[in-house]
Amino acid sequence: MMFHTITIIGFGLIGSSLARKIKAEGLCEKLICGDVSQEVCDTVSRLNLADESMTDLKASVQHADLVIIAVPVGAYGKIGNIISSGLKAGAIITDVGSVKGPVIQALCPFLPDDVSFVPAHPIAGTEKSGPEAGFSNLFEGHWTILTPLEGEKKSEAVQKISRFWEACGSMVEIMSPKHHDRVLGITSHLPHLIAYTIVGTATDLEEDTQSEIIKYSAGGFRDFTRIAAGDPTMWRDIFLSNKEAILDVLQRFNEDLTELQKAIRKGESEQLFHYFEKTSAIRKGVIKAKQEIPPVIIGDSRHPELVSGSGE
Amino acid sequence: MMFHTITIIGFGLIGSSLARKIKAEGLCEKLICGDVSQEVCDTVSRLNLADESMTDLKASVQHADLVIIAVPVGAYGKIGNIISSGLKAGAIITDVGSVKGPVIQALCPFLPDDVSFVPAHPIAGTEKSGPEAGFSNLFEGHWTILTPLEGEKKSEAVQKISRFWEACGSMVEIMSPKHHDRVLGITSHLPHLIAYTIVGTATDLEEDTQSEIIKYSAGGFRDFTRIAAGDPTMWRDIFLSNKEAILDVLQRFNEDLTELQKAIRKGESEQLFHYFEKTSAIRKGVIKAKQEIPPVIIGDSRHPELVSGSGE
Repeated sequence: MMFHTITIIGFGLIGSSLARKIKAEGLCEKLICGDVSQEVCDTVSRLNLADESMTDLKASVQHADLVIIAVPVGAYGKIGNIISSGLKAGAIITDVGSVKGPVIQALCPFLPDDVSFVPAHPIAGTEKSGPEAGFSNLFEGHWTILTPLEGEKKSEAVQKISRFWEACGSMVEIMSPKHHDRVLGITSHLPHLIAYTIVGTATDLEEDTQSEIIKYSAGGFRDFTRIAAGDPTMWRDIFLSNKEAILDVLQRFNEDLTELQKAIRKGESEQLFHYFEKTSAIRKGVIKAKQEIPPVIIGDSRHPELVSGSGE
Repeated sequence: MMFHTITIIGFGLIGSSLARKIKAEGLCEKLICGDVSQEVCDTVSRLNLADESMTDLKASVQHADLVIIAVPVGAYGKIGNIISSGLKAGAIITDVGSVKGPVIQALCPFLPDDVSFVPAHPIAGTEKSGPEAGFSNLFEGHWTILTPLEGEKKSEAVQKISRFWEACGSMVEIMSPKHHDRVLGITSHLPHLIAYTIVGTATDLEEDTQSEIIKYSAGGFRDFTRIAAGDPTMWRDIFLSNKEAILDVLQRFNEDLTELQKAIRKGESEQLFHYFEKTSAIRKGVIKAKQEIPPVIIGDSRHPELVSGSGE
């Protein structure tokens, strides 16, 4: 039993997957759901995902040894403001946000001195959202990155959260918030921004062309619609929070795209070939890295997209 | 028996998959492989993918009732020049090229009057290439688009090629070459160009960042590396051949990306949300369309990527 009482705030895909895993592994005595939506709380009760569920977030955290914030990153300040005076002395706060620097800035001013905050980001997900989309094996074989506050790298709280994520099936890595935001800006935020853009571009075309795009989407477009199917609120918050890193990598992307565009326009055959060839090295690295980490266990037949998410 | 002798020129992923399917369904008496690479011909013999294989393309077509050209679209003129004087009177020529207008222009000047050309494009594939990557179920449940020459829409040859693709497991659609190139420019060529660009952008970063990109690629980037893993020659030829349609849709994409970039920079929260929300309609259409067409039959356990390719 790692914790007596765990409260998860926000029961979307990640929060509800964590709840399922915590219950399955028996990681606490009591699991509490705090979610501002009564509808979500009702679903949590119906599916028996937590021992108690409530829309009063302050009340939801008052007995918790561990509070896990699993809401869109734009809502952290608001959540911090609501729960701060309800937190138990000695409690550990962690989160699952896809951006780390800005959420630390947003949350820390609200946290009392007698609690510890260990920012975390599990790199796992599907394009689905909501409490019904979660499943207990979501984190299996995936990395969770912890970005401890200044000087906290070896604290007891960080070690405990590290063991917690391992118990959830993750592999754990530690890095600085700033470095996290740069790496994820490239591996996740830019790809999502580009996918949203291309699907948006198609959405603006004439209606008959749209229906044909849908019909022949197997040519590559379909993959983009899947990437661009995430929760709009979550992604808006990520792009606005990680603005600096995203705009930086977007500028590099734009330079490369302009170069390719020019090469196509001018018919520069050799330059195109070399550009396409050089990308194969990274692809080989990705395949190799995948073989080195433990395979994802697909335990839930309702989630065939995970097989797809594995990417090969 | 639909044809006495079929010659496939080019035994890559598509050519070798067709060969496997033709043999499995018994669609001809004799199947001949024409490929300029001796190494490919040796592989074809070793895997028993055709009854005969030869590097002399002119000799390879001389008894064929059906010639299927399955080489990169930039090589059509050269192939036409080599085979034209070897073609049998009454033969049907078809192809599998991803671009239609330009390949018709490139090939037609070489074709004698007593043969029929029925341009075709099966919208199926994986990121693998070469004769060993093919498998007989590749076309199952996928569309093949025929783009008949002016006034040929109802010709006997078009009907025969239509039945041929249905026998290969495809659903068949007919449209003009120009329309095909525009639709595929959006559904396939632009997504591939963007994926190549983003992987290329990552390849230009410092080496330690690259290894982290690989490590945390599950966040979205990995999907792009898969899309950008196709044969460089094939994609170079597609981008150069379908230049006009691609540059047009690329311009629209650039406008949208600039708009999103500006919205991120200025923190325009509502505009971002609406953009991300509007893309969900197309996603729903894609999922619905997928449910309406027959499911892909995965008969070959060596090709788990097909499950992934299905996109959910």
